[in-house]
Amino acid sequence: MARLSHADLVLYDALVDRACLRHAPRARWAYVGKRAGRHSISQETIERLMIRRALAGERVVRLKSGDPFVLGRGGEEVLALAAAGIPCEVVPGVSSAVAAPALAGIPVTHRGLSSAFLVVSGHAEAAFAPALSSLEPGAATVVVLMGLQKRSAISALLLARGWDPETPAAVLLSAATSEARTWRRTLARLGECTLPERHPGLPGVLVIGAPVAVADQLQALAARDAATGPPTLRESRAPAC
Amino acid sequence: MARLSHADLVLYDALVDRACLRHAPRARWAYVGKRAGRHSISQETIERLMIRRALAGERVVRLKSGDPFVLGRGGEEVLALAAAGIPCEVVPGVSSAVAAPALAGIPVTHRGLSSAFLVVSGHAEAAFAPALSSLEPGAATVVVLMGLQKRSAISALLLARGWDPETPAAVLLSAATSEARTWRRTLARLGECTLPERHPGLPGVLVIGAPVAVADQLQALAARDAATGPPTLRESRAPAC
Repeated sequence: MARLSHADLVLYDALVDRACLRHAPRARWAYVGKRAGRHSISQETIERLMIRRALAGERVVRLKSGDPFVLGRGGEEVLALAAAGIPCEVVPGVSSAVAAPALAGIPVTHRGLSSAFLVVSGHAEAAFAPALSSLEPGAATVVVLMGLQKRSAISALLLARGWDPETPAAVLLSAATSEARTWRRTLARLGECTLPERHPGLPGVLVIGAPVAVADQLQALAARDAATGPPTLRESRAPAC
Repeated sequence: MARLSHADLVLYDALVDRACLRHAPRARWAYVGKRAGRHSISQETIERLMIRRALAGERVVRLKSGDPFVLGRGGEEVLALAAAGIPCEVVPGVSSAVAAPALAGIPVTHRGLSSAFLVVSGHAEAAFAPALSSLEPGAATVVVLMGLQKRSAISALLLARGWDPETPAAVLLSAATSEARTWRRTLARLGECTLPERHPGLPGVLVIGAPVAVADQLQALAARDAATGPPTLRESRAPAC
């Protein structure tokens, strides 16, 4: 936010919350977003625009949703700026790879269930196949970004690798927005979720692994409380401590 | 920050920046941190304390550095609260798994170099061996949290799996603090970094994979600018755009 408040120009992505605008009162805002399946500004153009405006003496903020270094092309942009001799600072962000599952009640790691997680791009088979097809079944929670379209292929690949078809899995759509939706399935049934027609334009995260069951446990406990009231009302005293 | 401002009690971890205290002016602060190799409060005690104070009507914030669901036992705490019928909210954080590399100039993914990353706990061989020993060499950037002590074992395991000994690797110590230090090595020489004697008490991140070389490129460009001035001063005009 401090960087936004001093910005002359903000180049922002498709998923950036427009409420951020109020943090950059003196800046011009330019949309440079890319969404699946739509014509959009090229990466090279974005980099040249940043360089050109910085050389003109402006303070430029490149604003991405999530973290710029998690499948966000931030490394390319930093290198382009460095090659042009332009100082820049990287501000790490909250990645949807972890936050989208968390907001759906799914920890990417959980003691006794998983002590590792793998984040892959689901954009193309060449991106996810090497890691997913080698990983020992259940050895890490799998988080796939940009993988909604390939969810059946990803499910098939993991099943062929020997994963248990009953492994809990989830599809998370538009996390952290008012339109957020979650489907929890087994790995074998990951392809069966009926997503909204416009889902190719929406951000989606797949999560596959034992910790997805934590969300089921939380749901069961909430259902218990809804049916009989929470234990604090059922029991006469608080736990000893 | 909004949650802190309304808190009655903040239970905070070892790595939490004390500057956060000013965001919770009305709260009591209780240290419940655990550091490697030191006697500390048990997880069960932390959970019972949260529940007890919440049942007494207090607003409790459980403040962790990084993300609570990345090797942070957040899932266990949420389940304990749910079992006690206590409503809670999870606020995702900026994980050191991504931020520590980013602050050292290392993107965990980078187009053409890596489209996946694996985050593992380096605390014990049982935690990291299944994922690391199965992953195809180079199929994902490897990020190890809490793995400083096991860095030689982790290097040996990956080499035995067939990773290129020349794979770029880095040890990142105390990221995002004034004491931050980075060592860049090859995978084969990961064990050779001479860390400060007190390193078992410091937070450390290992990164292994081709994108570590981005930090080398950034360093080379900075060295060029230091020697000859940036291209903006060397060249007569800005790039066309």
